Amino acid sequence: MRQSQLFTKTRREAPKDEVAKNAELLIRAGFIHKELAGVYSYLPLGLRVLNNIVQVIREEMNAIGGQELYLTALQDPNVWKKSGRWDDVAVDNWFKTKLKNDTELGLGFTHEEQLTNLMKDYISSFRDLPFSAYQFQTKFRNEARAKSGIMRAREFLMKDLYSFSRDEKEHVDFYEKAKAAYVKIFERLGLGDETYITFASGGSFSKYSHEFQTLSDAGEDMIYIDEKKKIAVNKEVLNDEVLNDLGLDRKNLIEKKAVEVGNIFSLGTRFSDAFDLNYLDMDGKKKPVVMGSYGIGPGRVMGVIAETMSDDHGLVWPRGIAPFDVHLVVIFDKGGTAKKEADALYDELLKNGTSVLYDDRDLRPGEKFADSDLIGIPTRVVVSEKNLKEGKFEVKDRKSGKVEMVVKGELGKILEK
Amino acid sequence: MRQSQLFTKTRREAPKDEVAKNAELLIRAGFIHKELAGVYSYLPLGLRVLNNIVQVIREEMNAIGGQELYLTALQDPNVWKKSGRWDDVAVDNWFKTKLKNDTELGLGFTHEEQLTNLMKDYISSFRDLPFSAYQFQTKFRNEARAKSGIMRAREFLMKDLYSFSRDEKEHVDFYEKAKAAYVKIFERLGLGDETYITFASGGSFSKYSHEFQTLSDAGEDMIYIDEKKKIAVNKEVLNDEVLNDLGLDRKNLIEKKAVEVGNIFSLGTRFSDAFDLNYLDMDGKKKPVVMGSYGIGPGRVMGVIAETMSDDHGLVWPRGIAPFDVHLVVIFDKGGTAKKEADALYDELLKNGTSVLYDDRDLRPGEKFADSDLIGIPTRVVVSEKNLKEGKFEVKDRKSGKVEMVVKGELGKILEK
Repeated sequence: MRQSQLFTKTRREAPKDEVAKNAELLIRAGFIHKELAGVYSYLPLGLRVLNNIVQVIREEMNAIGGQELYLTALQDPNVWKKSGRWDDVAVDNWFKTKLKNDTELGLGFTHEEQLTNLMKDYISSFRDLPFSAYQFQTKFRNEARAKSGIMRAREFLMKDLYSFSRDEKEHVDFYEKAKAAYVKIFERLGLGDETYITFASGGSFSKYSHEFQTLSDAGEDMIYIDEKKKIAVNKEVLNDEVLNDLGLDRKNLIEKKAVEVGNIFSLGTRFSDAFDLNYLDMDGKKKPVVMGSYGIGPGRVMGVIAETMSDDHGLVWPRGIAPFDVHLVVIFDKGGTAKKEADALYDELLKNGTSVLYDDRDLRPGEKFADSDLIGIPTRVVVSEKNLKEGKFEVKDRKSGKVEMVVKGELGKILEK
Repeated sequence: MRQSQLFTKTRREAPKDEVAKNAELLIRAGFIHKELAGVYSYLPLGLRVLNNIVQVIREEMNAIGGQELYLTALQDPNVWKKSGRWDDVAVDNWFKTKLKNDTELGLGFTHEEQLTNLMKDYISSFRDLPFSAYQFQTKFRNEARAKSGIMRAREFLMKDLYSFSRDEKEHVDFYEKAKAAYVKIFERLGLGDETYITFASGGSFSKYSHEFQTLSDAGEDMIYIDEKKKIAVNKEVLNDEVLNDLGLDRKNLIEKKAVEVGNIFSLGTRFSDAFDLNYLDMDGKKKPVVMGSYGIGPGRVMGVIAETMSDDHGLVWPRGIAPFDVHLVVIFDKGGTAKKEADALYDELLKNGTSVLYDDRDLRPGEKFADSDLIGIPTRVVVSEKNLKEGKFEVKDRKSGKVEMVVKGELGKILEK
């Protein structure tokens, strides 16, 4: 895309009431817009990043057999009363609204109830199991405070997958597959090294749940990591019994702040009991379905990347997640050929399937470079009169800052790295 | 996808309270699930159709330079008070909710206000114009009655594009481009023949708006069409002055029921005036931005297709919109090779990039054919022992019902048609 056409522009300052570093940077770079505390719109650059994250997650959910669907935000109170979670005392972050006839409805903060209820139409026999279903859907959570930018929003996109199994063994098989898929997802998102599988409390049906915690000073969780074993324990469950269970030694643990970027949870029969979601097994015996839930917030992941990978100059996107592969910047020189060469290079890159933000604006070089650093596309290619005299382009890696002068014909090879 | 894995199943009956034919068929075929009146979830087959429709619209919006973004559902009352549309008297279909501190928020039923307000951060000079931005976003409309299935839902996906121009001339240029894009979209969606550009009332800034009306007995609008000129007039503006404007003769008009599948609207400076969205022109003079809005509901389009193209046996999807290109059905024969041949064909079709629903279930042929007709995939390929003896597959076109016996090696050619 030509940057002269992009309607967003970088800004020197974020709104005064914005306290989160991730939102501040993303607003300044034109990726998001703050509507209200905890309520952010995604502008073209931001939506491209969000969609890239969504696509990575979707591919890995499909790879473990997840079937994509799309549930509603509006929630029927009668469904939630069955599990006891309609009450504002039981759940303190509902947003509720009303139909014209005064019937109260909720805005989904999660979807266990709705999906369990729906599955009564489709599960009756052991032949219908096992399977899993997932969605990318907007959740609404009425947070009392919302000061973490897009890392904890009141309205946010969530990938939630739910598994339906015949018994505990079948459930555990899927649970382990999902866990491995999550490890792969965070690696692909560039967060692998900083993300720890973290043991957390499991509720009534399993001793532990597993959180995926990414180290960050902006995190709200405190975790204890064993670097060698690459696992961690959430502070809330850290005790001798747990350490013993996991074969961990307290003296090898390091306390770190972290952000929960994903979590996987065995639900047992909590919801199937509440909704009578049963099946007939091979012997004709009625049994409850065993469920699990598996969440990742793509917006939160984007916030964590903005928060932890940025530097003093701005955002630094990992390849594959970045809004574009290449930021092509032309330095105008009156009467020169730089613009023509850059136009040709732009067309060539697009033809090769490289996604390019092309800064074709007639601005001072310093301004263009500052914008480029703030936006944080992994590779910057500068076309200027001076370098063209030597038949070269300047290629800069945003992350390392390393600059290479590349002979025109060699650019393709460099970009493939 | 293997149908044995698909968690949805067809149903003999839709819920008793469902009165709309589109929803009844889509529920029976397992495309959608009814949560509440006017509130429907999209199941895997339905989501595939919805996404196909979305993709057609996205491509055409990108082709006219639209920049995709994603605004929020939660709406700030202070923004809407500026245009006078916060009041429940001015707008009678708001869903409203509350923050913990009792601040009232709205759930967006449209996004003119939010986007106009946002653009104040990005538009200041004539250099920033013109451009257009669009989104696929969930709208909430508190309809008093919701009896038209997914053709008029209380929560639904909408593509809304907004254009920002320097003056009326520039606006009209874009408006005409958008109109042509809409014609192309409805052609690609298979609704071209039955969809009429329809003159409707234009509000305070232009005499007419244009609706795209698809003929359907389930429609809520009455339009008067001139078949030769392929245009129509909405009943609400049918009078002699309008007929004269458009060069239409009342005796050539036929009255028809129709569904509004899209509309395009000149907003003039209504919103830019309310929000002080101005720019400095080349002479340094402050001028208001001229706006337009352009909507299509992908869910409604899907409902209209289900409503108007179905037959007594079920749904009939146009190619390109269908959940899969091919429905491959194997007829089991004990000890025979049909299953093996069908498995091989399934792999081959996938490898060629054909999307396939493969009915590999061990059910009676009649049951499988009835399901296949109900689901409505354009091409059905039947693999059975009997036909294999002649080295052939049976290929049936869902729409025409035409059956061909195709030699195995020729199948690729047939599917390309």
